Parts: sequence; structure tokens; C-alpha cells
Amino acid sequence: MVRVQALRKELDEPDLDGYIITDVKNVYYFTEFLDISDAALCLLVPTCGEATLFAPALSYTAAKEKAKGCDIKQIKSGEKLVDKVIEEIKRLKLKQIGYDKITIATYLRFLEELKDVKFEETPDLYWNLRRVKDAGEIALIKRAAYLTDAGARAAIEAVKPGVHEYEVAAEAEYAMRSKGSEGTAFETIVASGPRAAYPHGICSDRIIREGEFVIIDLGATYQGYKCDITRTVIAGTPRKKQKELFDIVLNAQKVGVMSIHAGIATKDVDTTVRKIIEKAGYGENFLHSLGHGVGLDIHELPMLSQLSKDTLVEGNVVTVEPGVYLPNFGGVRIEDTVVVLKGHAELLTKTSRKLTY
Amino acid sequence: MVRVQALRKELDEPDLDGYIITDVKNVYYFTEFLDISDAALCLLVPTCGEATLFAPALSYTAAKEKAKGCDIKQIKSGEKLVDKVIEEIKRLKLKQIGYDKITIATYLRFLEELKDVKFEETPDLYWNLRRVKDAGEIALIKRAAYLTDAGARAAIEAVKPGVHEYEVAAEAEYAMRSKGSEGTAFETIVASGPRAAYPHGICSDRIIREGEFVIIDLGATYQGYKCDITRTVIAGTPRKKQKELFDIVLNAQKVGVMSIHAGIATKDVDTTVRKIIEKAGYGENFLHSLGHGVGLDIHELPMLSQLSKDTLVEGNVVTVEPGVYLPNFGGVRIEDTVVVLKGHAELLTKTSRKLTY
Repeated sequence: MVRVQALRKELDEPDLDGYIITDVKNVYYFTEFLDISDAALCLLVPTCGEATLFAPALSYTAAKEKAKGCDIKQIKSGEKLVDKVIEEIKRLKLKQIGYDKITIATYLRFLEELKDVKFEETPDLYWNLRRVKDAGEIALIKRAAYLTDAGARAAIEAVKPGVHEYEVAAEAEYAMRSKGSEGTAFETIVASGPRAAYPHGICSDRIIREGEFVIIDLGATYQGYKCDITRTVIAGTPRKKQKELFDIVLNAQKVGVMSIHAGIATKDVDTTVRKIIEKAGYGENFLHSLGHGVGLDIHELPMLSQLSKDTLVEGNVVTVEPGVYLPNFGGVRIEDTVVVLKGHAELLTKTSRKLTY
Repeated sequence: MVRVQALRKELDEPDLDGYIITDVKNVYYFTEFLDISDAALCLLVPTCGEATLFAPALSYTAAKEKAKGCDIKQIKSGEKLVDKVIEEIKRLKLKQIGYDKITIATYLRFLEELKDVKFEETPDLYWNLRRVKDAGEIALIKRAAYLTDAGARAAIEAVKPGVHEYEVAAEAEYAMRSKGSEGTAFETIVASGPRAAYPHGICSDRIIREGEFVIIDLGATYQGYKCDITRTVIAGTPRKKQKELFDIVLNAQKVGVMSIHAGIATKDVDTTVRKIIEKAGYGENFLHSLGHGVGLDIHELPMLSQLSKDTLVEGNVVTVEPGVYLPNFGGVRIEDTVVVLKGHAELLTKTSRKLTY
């Protein structure tokens, strides 16, 4: 398996002789077997010898059929996953093990049972791989983007005075799901009126009124890969200040997308956009970073933020989503998902960016 | 706040002088503020003095408006949540702190910065409270059950030969969402034909064929509270063995529901149902425990299983869901959510239990 081989190479530099993976998305990335999100799986990848996927009875049949490049061992009823993993670590005589995510209980148990083994949380190892998408992954994200656009269009169409926020979400999610989306990529946000001032407004039973901002933030999932879009619209005729605010954010977002290319520092993209919004007088109201990576997770590396030290490379997939939030007035956020190419960024989400449709 | 007071009482016996809560559902339970699922919040509840909710800028405005019974402190851009919590622990001179969930990185940081403080993962403290639902919570779960039934009926109606599994999910999710469900309680399962042999079959792009089992497992969410139902149906006319298998599981499920009352051991309910399925010759194919608690989480305490040592009490809300899975043949699972009352269990999900409709 190419990806497991790539992971083995990543183990070299921190001098690890094994890696433990429990995140179902990482298991999928390395084995092609996608389980439900709270499945209790563990993939143990030693530098020498075959990788082993430990799967409970509930997942075993599906794992046997789908998982590639690893041995599959069943955790039977009454057995504990952690015991089986400890047994295998002893058998392989591993001494330096990295992991993606384990609980404190498991960590303390490892320390107790495996006194001469060192454990280290090393998320960089899989992020170094996952943050750069290959052609197959980009094709899946493009399909997710197509479904995401269908959802955005349905939502925009559903926004009318008198409609509940959740009804807008229902139309959007139905449009995505009936075309093949695997549920939603994250909790759909439909935030209207004063609720548009909350960056994480989710969706309530509030009734949308004439002339209010409505922030719609949603995404589809296809074969595990996600996509992300935000549009801000108005049910009715915008007032002057609403139109001005929208245009500021839209201009900033477009400049952000245009500034992206392989080789640019993520921080510089954030700065470019932030300066435009600061200049317009809303710097204090741009409450979050500019964007985030998207893939199997909806928020992943690289981040487009002031705190990030990354440089964009071909194959990164990121969002560009400036937002301005004014308490008691509402807010505007506009977001697209793009793939980083050599000299520019390609927009994956294509729904037009307008305040009224 | 009544619930925070109840938590303070729970701190007595393990002799803790403070409790750290980071799970957004626990934050909601104790403060009435429900944030998005991956929000970075921390509620610190000392035995003496006021509780403090630390919230990032993205959540601060909403927290200020909704959260009750606690001080709210904003984590500003550039500040770290963990630093603020450490500062507050030092200020309050806490020495024995329990927590619901923290990362290993946070745990190691605490040990380093707070050398004379002891930390202990004590999930029982909040589960002791959350597992017994009050009248207000049961009303919300009943609303979620109403929405869940609407989803189940829409799904059953959508099952026809020639339809994709995801189209069935789309109809179910639309029915729930457009009536006010907050997304789905978990990933909708529509598992047809041989896929019905996977207990966690999720939902694929497989086309349902005439005469196949289709397992539909779904749930709605209302004000954070979830509900869970499974029905197994056939598109077309069942064969004799399919009908027999269905009747075995249906009978076992009904006996399971009828055996529930306050005071019975959870293990005994599982045993009663398991024996019926064993007697019918399918003991090996009943791959999971009988049921689980439902509330703010879709899988919570108490569990109805051979490993559980709990006794049911009034106000527990649990599922009863025997399943038989036959490789290359399919499977049958029937599930309802019930609330435990003094002398019996009340069915919350009410969709009729039939193989064909």
C-alpha cells in the first residue's frame, strides 16, 4: 500500500518503530476502509512487518471486505481492544511508538503495561500526508463540491420571509443527500437577523424576516471527502449599509482567492484579506482566521491564519472565508473551497456570490 | 443552577474540589448553552465559588446570551484556553480536580504547570446525573421521537426496488429536518441486501432490489436531545426464511421491551432477549448488546448488555434493539427507544413494526 509505505517513511525522522492510528478517518486514509465515526478501531503500523487492523465484531465483516494492505484481527465480545494492541506491541518488540489520538486511560494503561516503550503524540506524521491531496482525492472533493453547490442553491432559493431557518436547512440537505451526499460535512448553519452576528450560529427555529441577513454555511460529503461553502443573502431588498458591508467582504474574499498560489505563506493570505477589512473599519469584527484545510475532516491543515507558519503547496485544499460580525446588526461571511495549483487557486465551489438572487 | 449544584454534591465523595468540563454536551447540560460540536469550551466548577465558562471569540457572544449560572470569560485571539484554565486553577488554589474529557497534551501540560494538583478522569460524576432524565428532558426526547417516527415512515415509504440507499436516507432526513430536527442524531443507516448483514452498514449508493431486506436505522435531534429507531423492511414479497427470521427478532424485541421496569438489572434484560434468539439458533449472529442509553449522546449510559452492572431506574431512556446478521443473506434489526417507568417501559418511538407495509 502506497500510503502505508509513505507513513513508514515519515516514521524515520522522529525515529519511531511503530505508529498507532485510532481516528476512523486516518484508518480510511491508510486502508480504504471507512467505518462509522465512533467505531473503535486501531491500526498498528510497524516499520518492519505487516500492519494490523484491530476491529470489533460490529466492524469486522465490513473491514475484512474493504480494508487493504493490513492484517485484520477481530476483537471478540469480552476482549478489550487495548489488551490486544498491547499484546501485539510486545510481540513485535516495539520501543518507540507514535500515535494519532488515544485516550488518557489508554495512555496510562500503555505506560503501566509497556514500561520500556516510549509513546509520542505525532499528528504531523499523518497531516504531512493528508494535507496534500492526490488526483483521486481532488476528484472526490470536486464531487463533494458539486453536491455542496446543489445544497447552496437550494438553500438560497428557500430563503423567504416567514420561513424557519431549519426549513432552509432541510431543503439544502435534501438537495445534497438525494444526489448522493453522505449526510452533511458538518452541522448546517442558517443564521438570520441578529443570529447572523454569531459566526457559529448553527440553525434554529427562528423565522426569517424581510430585509435580514441570512448566513448559510454548509457542505456535502462524498466517499468521506468534504467541502465547505458560505453565502450571505437577504430576503428582500438590502439597505445601504447591508449592501456596503456585503461588498467589503465580497471584495476581500475575491482578493483572498486571487492571492493564493503554490509557494505563498498561509499567513500572508490571511494578512492580505485582513488588511482590506481593517481598512474598511471592521478589523475588530473579523473574529476568526481566514480559512482552513478541507478533506476527510472539515477543519484540517493547513490553516490560513496569523498563527500558521505553513506555505501552500500544490494539492492543498483550503477555504477562503472572511466574515464581519456586528452585534445587533447581523453579519456577512462569504466562503469558497479552493484547490491550490502552481500559479493560482481553482474555485471548487461555484455558486455565484450575490446578496440577492 | 440546580444541575451545577447537583454536580457539586457529586464532587463530595471522591473528595474533589473542582471539576473541568470540555464536552460541549456537558456544557449544555450544566449551563443551557449548546455550542457546535467541535467548539473549544471549558467549564470550571469549583466546589466553592462561581463556575466559569471559558469561551473563544467565536462562541463568546452566544455564550453570553445563553449560558446560565456561570461567569463567562473570553479567550482572545492569541490566548490559549489551557493557559487561562491553569491561571484560574491557581487563583482558586484547587488541589483535586476531576474532568470529563481532556487531551493528553492538556493533561501533560496540567501536570507540568500544576505540580501539586491531582487530576482524575471521573465520567461517573456527570453520567450519574445525565443518565436519569427529568421531566423537561423527557419532553424533549418525546419531541425527538415524534420527528424520528416521521423519518422512519418516510424511509419505509421510499423503499422500492430500483432506489438508491441514499435516496431513502434523503427522504427520511428531509421529513425530520423540515419538521424541526437539528440534523440527524447519527449517521443514517440504510443497508440493503447483503449489506444488511453489517450492523453498521451506514448508507451507500447501492440500488435496492426486489425481495431484499433493508435495515433502516435513524434518529432525530431536538434541542440537543436524540432518539433512535430501527426498522427492517422488504421491498416486495418476503421469502419464508426471511419472514421467520423477522418474526424471531420481532418477538424477542417485544419481550425485551415488556421486561423493562424500574429495578431490573440491565444485564437481565439483555439475557432475556438473548436467550430467545439463542433458542431460535441465532445466538452467534446477535453480534451486539441489546441496547444503550439515549439523551444528549446517541450512545450513553446505561447499557443493556452482558457487561453492564447497572439497574434501571425511573427516568432512564434506553433502546431495545436485538439484531441477527447472516453473512450473504442479510440481517434483521428492530429497535425502539423507551423511557423506564415504575412498573413498565413506555415506547417513545411508535412506528409500527412490520416487515412489509
